[in-house]
Amino acid sequence: MSTVNHRILLVSRPQAEATLDNFRLEAAPLPDVGPGEVLVRHHYLSLDPYMRGRMSEAKSYAAPQALGATMLGGTAGEVVASRNPAFAVGDTVVGNGGWQEYALVAGAALPGLQKIDTRNVPLSAYLGPVGMPGITAWFGLSKILEPKPGETVVVSAASGAVGSVVGQLARLRGCRAVGVAGGKEKCDYVVHELGFDACIDYKAAPDAAALDERLAAAAPKGIDACFENVGGRIFDAVLGRMNAFGRVALCGMIAGYDGEPVPIRNPSVILRSRLKVQGFIVFESPSSVPWAMAELGALVASGRLRYRESIAQGLAAAPAAFLGLLKGRNLGKQLVKLT
Amino acid sequence: MSTVNHRILLVSRPQAEATLDNFRLEAAPLPDVGPGEVLVRHHYLSLDPYMRGRMSEAKSYAAPQALGATMLGGTAGEVVASRNPAFAVGDTVVGNGGWQEYALVAGAALPGLQKIDTRNVPLSAYLGPVGMPGITAWFGLSKILEPKPGETVVVSAASGAVGSVVGQLARLRGCRAVGVAGGKEKCDYVVHELGFDACIDYKAAPDAAALDERLAAAAPKGIDACFENVGGRIFDAVLGRMNAFGRVALCGMIAGYDGEPVPIRNPSVILRSRLKVQGFIVFESPSSVPWAMAELGALVASGRLRYRESIAQGLAAAPAAFLGLLKGRNLGKQLVKLT
Repeated sequence: MSTVNHRILLVSRPQAEATLDNFRLEAAPLPDVGPGEVLVRHHYLSLDPYMRGRMSEAKSYAAPQALGATMLGGTAGEVVASRNPAFAVGDTVVGNGGWQEYALVAGAALPGLQKIDTRNVPLSAYLGPVGMPGITAWFGLSKILEPKPGETVVVSAASGAVGSVVGQLARLRGCRAVGVAGGKEKCDYVVHELGFDACIDYKAAPDAAALDERLAAAAPKGIDACFENVGGRIFDAVLGRMNAFGRVALCGMIAGYDGEPVPIRNPSVILRSRLKVQGFIVFESPSSVPWAMAELGALVASGRLRYRESIAQGLAAAPAAFLGLLKGRNLGKQLVKLT
Repeated sequence: MSTVNHRILLVSRPQAEATLDNFRLEAAPLPDVGPGEVLVRHHYLSLDPYMRGRMSEAKSYAAPQALGATMLGGTAGEVVASRNPAFAVGDTVVGNGGWQEYALVAGAALPGLQKIDTRNVPLSAYLGPVGMPGITAWFGLSKILEPKPGETVVVSAASGAVGSVVGQLARLRGCRAVGVAGGKEKCDYVVHELGFDACIDYKAAPDAAALDERLAAAAPKGIDACFENVGGRIFDAVLGRMNAFGRVALCGMIAGYDGEPVPIRNPSVILRSRLKVQGFIVFESPSSVPWAMAELGALVASGRLRYRESIAQGLAAAPAAFLGLLKGRNLGKQLVKLT
């Protein structure tokens, strides 16, 4: 086992777009394992859009990431040393170890370390369809949108880790699933591999009228439920096509993470169509997690829930992979493989 | 009894602001009363902001008002002729008779004609605090905002027919009630006569920073629930001060009725603070109406729910009074008295 732990720190806050300068790779000695503590070697880091929000100081649901500290984030790996009877060397675990090769898990952080079963579900899937993104999709669809069979569900960032699960679950619940994604390659993946009924390439629809026309064609009976990961002009277009009593689960506003606010241009449609627009954060609903993981794990194990991963190799590749994620360069769940 | 019925027609649609030219007063013979039909003489017409929406052709929850037809609207009056056993001459009734002196109520419209008890509640109150505006306030507060005692409720257009009831009901439910209104006279009325805890004069807060400062002072523990009647910059300011898991009942977007869309400038707060923003229309919840009217009627009869009326005299005054309502020139419920 190495005696060095490499990690990536946040060293400055973005002025507008995040850049490589905001991060620094450093080496530190591996800490000693004290009583009750567990040392985890990370196999995978999860990269997620919400991390961009934490890089800024703006008020949000979570405290901003501290400057000079290791970037926070979800991790999957194995226990390599343990002085805690609940964990044994060799256990596979997911946790919030951050952007580093090893994490010493101690004290208040221990409840966040979860043993997982990798006999039928690959380790990395616990950061994707069976992890936070999948659970987010499950929660927003099942608890906020509550679509009925025959309804039309639209999801933006449809090829991403969350959106891909939203649409497949919607199909399994008897709904028409319509994705929105950027580029032909992503849309082909969404329709032909994930099985959505339709996918709109927003890059091929540069103005509001073109986007609206494609939405009308893809959702001929209107839109009953929207799982919104992006915000901005796509969301505006979807709102305009929503049926009376439609529901919107507001999960992400990626378009606004770089600082400039992105308005909802015509919110009177919320009144006119009596919509419910609800923001949510999945980790505030812990009681749903076991139900979500049970369904998602079974679907992945049986091959009925499909997913792809974009895997960057090595810790040093994490910042560039993260910036690429914010630009939509990944296809499927963005991971960093460390082993 | 007169043999002539005066009425006001919609003769053109507004290009931007509604104007007097959009309306025309005309005289028509009083119709004969056929079997099953009821003739009502109107004592009061109700003027309401939603009517502006119906003057336009834009898609909305109700069909646009037809050109050349009598303006639609709520009315209170008495039965002057009846060939229907459910109604007798002299009954006091509320209905949807429109902008005219008499209405012949027949066929499918009959269920909309409701006998009311004016022993303890004045007839005009059935168009205000015990009518559609009061029921709207009751429904939005009780069924969408569901505030708990000690929470802070903000309502815009606080001196209006809906807003004035929202704040008083919030106080009766143990909440802190904060109004927003235009001008010192309205704010004084809201605080000193209606008993709100505070009222912000938005005309004295011309920019976002000034508005935010006043909101912070009036709602020192943040805002848990917002009953939104206006939209625009006031709504933006309120959203920015909402506590986690806050609720917004979206009842009106008066700022946008003249055609130009009024955006929500920073909707990412809906995500950050996990808000629920819900549009609603009260007449879609008929099962709530008897509960609402029972509570509101008892509160008016006992003097615990206060209200004022702005009364224009005579049918010919209706268009100007309506345009004044859209400009916020009224204080309390805007009515037209016909008798």
